Formats: sequence, C-alpha cells, structure tokens
Amino acid sequence: MPEFDLIRRLQEAICAPEAPYRPQCVLGIGDDAAVLEAPAGRQLVVCTDSLVEGVHFPGLTPAVAVGHKALAVNLSDLAAMGAEPAWFFLALTLPEARPAWLEAFAQGMAQLAKTSGAFLSGGDVTSGPLNICITALGLVETGQALTRSGARPGDLVVISGRPGAAAHALAVLQDGGTPNDADRAALDFPVPRLRLGRELRGLATSCIDVSDGLLADLGHILDASGVGAELELRNLPCPPGMMAMPETDRWPLQLSGGDDYELCFTIPADLGVRLPELSQAGEVELTVIGLITEQRGLLVRAPDGSLFQPSHSGYEHFRDFGVREP
Amino acid sequence: MPEFDLIRRLQEAICAPEAPYRPQCVLGIGDDAAVLEAPAGRQLVVCTDSLVEGVHFPGLTPAVAVGHKALAVNLSDLAAMGAEPAWFFLALTLPEARPAWLEAFAQGMAQLAKTSGAFLSGGDVTSGPLNICITALGLVETGQALTRSGARPGDLVVISGRPGAAAHALAVLQDGGTPNDADRAALDFPVPRLRLGRELRGLATSCIDVSDGLLADLGHILDASGVGAELELRNLPCPPGMMAMPETDRWPLQLSGGDDYELCFTIPADLGVRLPELSQAGEVELTVIGLITEQRGLLVRAPDGSLFQPSHSGYEHFRDFGVREP
Repeated sequence: MPEFDLIRRLQEAICAPEAPYRPQCVLGIGDDAAVLEAPAGRQLVVCTDSLVEGVHFPGLTPAVAVGHKALAVNLSDLAAMGAEPAWFFLALTLPEARPAWLEAFAQGMAQLAKTSGAFLSGGDVTSGPLNICITALGLVETGQALTRSGARPGDLVVISGRPGAAAHALAVLQDGGTPNDADRAALDFPVPRLRLGRELRGLATSCIDVSDGLLADLGHILDASGVGAELELRNLPCPPGMMAMPETDRWPLQLSGGDDYELCFTIPADLGVRLPELSQAGEVELTVIGLITEQRGLLVRAPDGSLFQPSHSGYEHFRDFGVREP
Repeated sequence: MPEFDLIRRLQEAICAPEAPYRPQCVLGIGDDAAVLEAPAGRQLVVCTDSLVEGVHFPGLTPAVAVGHKALAVNLSDLAAMGAEPAWFFLALTLPEARPAWLEAFAQGMAQLAKTSGAFLSGGDVTSGPLNICITALGLVETGQALTRSGARPGDLVVISGRPGAAAHALAVLQDGGTPNDADRAALDFPVPRLRLGRELRGLATSCIDVSDGLLADLGHILDASGVGAELELRNLPCPPGMMAMPETDRWPLQLSGGDDYELCFTIPADLGVRLPELSQAGEVELTVIGLITEQRGLLVRAPDGSLFQPSHSGYEHFRDFGVREP
C-alpha cells in the first residue's frame, strides 16, 4: 500500500468520491483541520463516543458491523436531540493495518453515512489497541433541540422499537451460544432513529437514546426533569427473537440491557393520538410503556400489579468504582 | 466514588464551575449531545486526534502532562488554521479509574483549557486500553482559515520556536537516559502556537503544525501547493538543550523528529520585514529557514553547500504498510 493509502481508502469508501465536499464543508480531509459552515438559523449538536472491542462489541464482530455501529451509536445521540446529521470525524486506533478488515469496516460505515447524510470531514489514524472514536456534528433549528429535562407529570413514556434484542444476543454469545438472526442484527447493526428524532421536535418534552439500558436511560430523563415514572411491563413490546422466553428472563434484559439505541421519550398525554402518525413518519413502531409522575423514583409494575425489582439498572463502566458512562 | 463522579470531577476540574456554559454553548455536559451556536460571520474549524501510550507519549509520562498534551496537539491543529479555540470534546478510554491519575490528568488539561479559551462541552468515558481522543472546535472569520495549499515560489519558509527538542528527549528516554529539563518540557508540555496562528491570518500563504517532523510536514505544504522548497540547515535554530550535540546528530532529530508542535508557514518575501512584529505578537521566536521554489521537491542544504540527505522524513504509523498519520 503506498503512503496515505489507508486514509485515501477510508475517504473514498466513506465519502462519495464524486462529491468530496458537502456544500457547507469548505475544506475537508487533507489539512490540519476541516473548515465547516453552519447555516444561519441552526444550532450545532455535537457528540462523541468511543467503541472498544470487548466492551462495546464482542470480539470477532464482523468489521462491517464495527464500522456501522461506531457511526450508528453517535448518530443515535443526534437522533435523541432531534438533530439532522451533517459531518463526522473518525479517530481510528488500530493494532495493525489489515486491508480486508479496513475495507469491510469502511463499507459498513459508508453505507450508514450515505443513508443518513453524515459526511466524513476529517480524522486521524494511529497505531495502538483497537479504538474507534467518532465525533458527530448535527444541525437543529435554533431552540428546537430535544433534551432530557422537559418531562412533566402526566406525560406518556414512549419507546421506539422493541428493546432487549441486543442484550439477548450478547447474553447468548457470552454463554457460548449462537444468537438468532434478529437479535444478532439488533446487536451488530443498530438503526439510529434519526427520522423519528426529527419528527419529535416541538412534540416530545424529553428524549434519550437507550444505550445503557431502558431503566438507566429513562432514569436520566427523570433526574434531569425532576420527576418520577411508572412503567407497565405488560406494555413492553417483545422483540421477535425473544418470544419463546419466560417473561421473568426477558424483562431484565429488556429493562437493563444496553445497546438497543431505540429512543425513549415523553410526550404530553393529549398528543398520544398522534403516535400512529409519528410512528409512520419515524418509520418505527412506538409503544406507550408508562407515565411520568410527580412522585420521584421509577416504579416498574408487573402485569399482576406487583412491583418488579430488577437486579441492576443498566451497563456500567468501572462498576467497582461507581463510575459510569455519561 | 459515587455514581458519575468521574465525569463530574473532570467537568469541575476542566470547566470552571462558576461558568458552566460558554456563551455560545447552549447545552453542555449532561445530555445526549451538546448544543452550540457558532456566531455569524465565522466558520467552524474542527480536528480530532487520539493519543495512545507508547505511541504519542512514553509510558510513565506524568498524568498532568498527558492531560496537557492531549489537548495541546488538537489546539495546535487549530493554531495551524488560524482559528480561535471554542469548544472541545473528550472521549477517554481508561483501563481503570485511578483517582490520583485522573485528578492530575484533569488538572493538566484544565490549565491549558483555561489559558486557551477552549471549553469542555461533552465527552465519553469508557473502559479499555488507555486512549485519549479529543475533538476540538475553533472559529475563524469566514474565508480567513490558513491552509496548506497557498505556498508560492519565492515565499519564505518560516519556523516558530526551535524544533527538535521533543525528539531529542524521546531519543534520550529510548536509550534509557534522562532528558534535560528543556527537552523534557518540549516533549511533555508542547505549547500550541495559537496567538501566532491568529496573527498569520491574511499574511501567511500556507501553514502547518509540525507533528510528524519538519520535513514530512513541510512536505505536506509542498504537495498541497504544488511547489518545492530549499532549506538552509545553517538557519535552523538550535534548541537550548541540544547546543552541545554535533550538528550531524542534531539535524536529523530537528528535521525528522515529530512532536514539536511548532508552526511551519510560508509568507511572501516582501512581508519578511514584518516577522519581528509577528514574533512579538505571536509570543514566539520566528526564523526564516528556506525558500519556496517552482522546482518540485525538497532540498536541504548543509552550511558547506552540500545536499543533506536525512534517513527518513518523519514519524509514520504502520511503517510496514506505508500508511501514515494525516
């Protein structure tokens, strides 16, 4: 491979070569930094997330999935803010330059970049233990960003899709088994709910993406909004690959398993009638799973009316230190 | 340590607690993404760089230096574009949460963040082999960004400071020795030349920061500008800690050693008279080390007039694969 070839290959695979610059990307890859122009009337929405093998994806995950997922988890944060993807930056740390791995990685990332409208505008490649760090920049109309802090008592708690499949796939893998295709796809190729996030502007009172687990992430909304919630387990939609499981095995995975990247949001009760329309426009199933309460705390009610107590609320890095992902 | 304490400690140490948001940082740490507002008439300048132990800093580097350097190398890219730092994002991958290390790391980063005006606006903490990925966002007046591509025949080639000290410190460390204080400071606490970069707007025809080595980085300017250059080794300013070295040992470190983070820029010859004034405003020594030529290629001339042939031009990741850092 000649000099710079890794960068060029990634660039060619991830940016459409015929359109090297997005209109507002004045200067892209190939200088010390990119020069971008945010259109008037828009605010920038920016997030960054690193993916580490064995933490964010199991070892032996196909490179095409790693490329997809690294971008997807960042776009999911933009979706949760109601932002439209604009540009992204890739800092790739690799133990070795394996052309076949890189080709597939770039292909997975390119596919999602194209369909989402995110444009690779810069990056960095270095040697070291595998680490994929992406910073995604999105745009949102001024004052329209969705946040975690606006949930009010009486609001409906809504979830997109059917959380739990990714956690189920991971649990099966960790037991040495082979996950079913639907669960494996949820783990390897999460779909950032970008259309839904855009549709929720001006309607949802709060929004978050489920990356650490439904209870943990809904907990962030409750903390930021100064409210509580009651969840109804009977309403929790069951992923297709988990239909055969006993509910008491399924619920903990659905409530505490991370990696689903569905959106959990709150919406005033009188807007509940608009959920079918939002579901159609957002291209994903929407289910009301609970209610925001004035009383702080998060109650989870089983179908028989009893309170359900999950063993832990979600994924934590540095559990022993009591430190967790933001 | 209670939940979220790592994030809070970093936030408190790195953002001044009394000023949680920069005026244009509408929403900072604590949501899925930050919401930022770029002022009218400015373009965004964005770069990302990961630091890996053993690659970008030697093992046992003090945490305060790691924190400083991780931010400094990114701000240096903004300096090379003539941009003013605005916000930065930190994706920190840690093998373990060691409070003393984190405290010192945050202190090193906070010090530079405060003096440079860069505001920590978001991030991510995850478990895995140590990797510090920073994305820095700066602002520059529309159309005023410095690039690599404007050097013209007859322009002067200018270097800030005295490159080579960081490479010398590293070479001494690699030989099991103890670098002198000046060299060690150059390696551990590089100073991003932000003031100089700002002063060069409208004057320099091209600019780059020396991260991979003077020849390699000047080579990027020559490639991007479609020109060549002749360097005069007699003009290359000698770092204080390298005065006692034979020139033939010193020059290779000065030409090919990375990690100096000085700015190398070109300026029309008739603006050469303004260099003392630029040096004063930029708070760093400036030295004319060569001339841009129409003839492509980079010639390095020794004081006796002979051509000097360095063994390699700069630091390369994945040398065996011919792939290198952008």
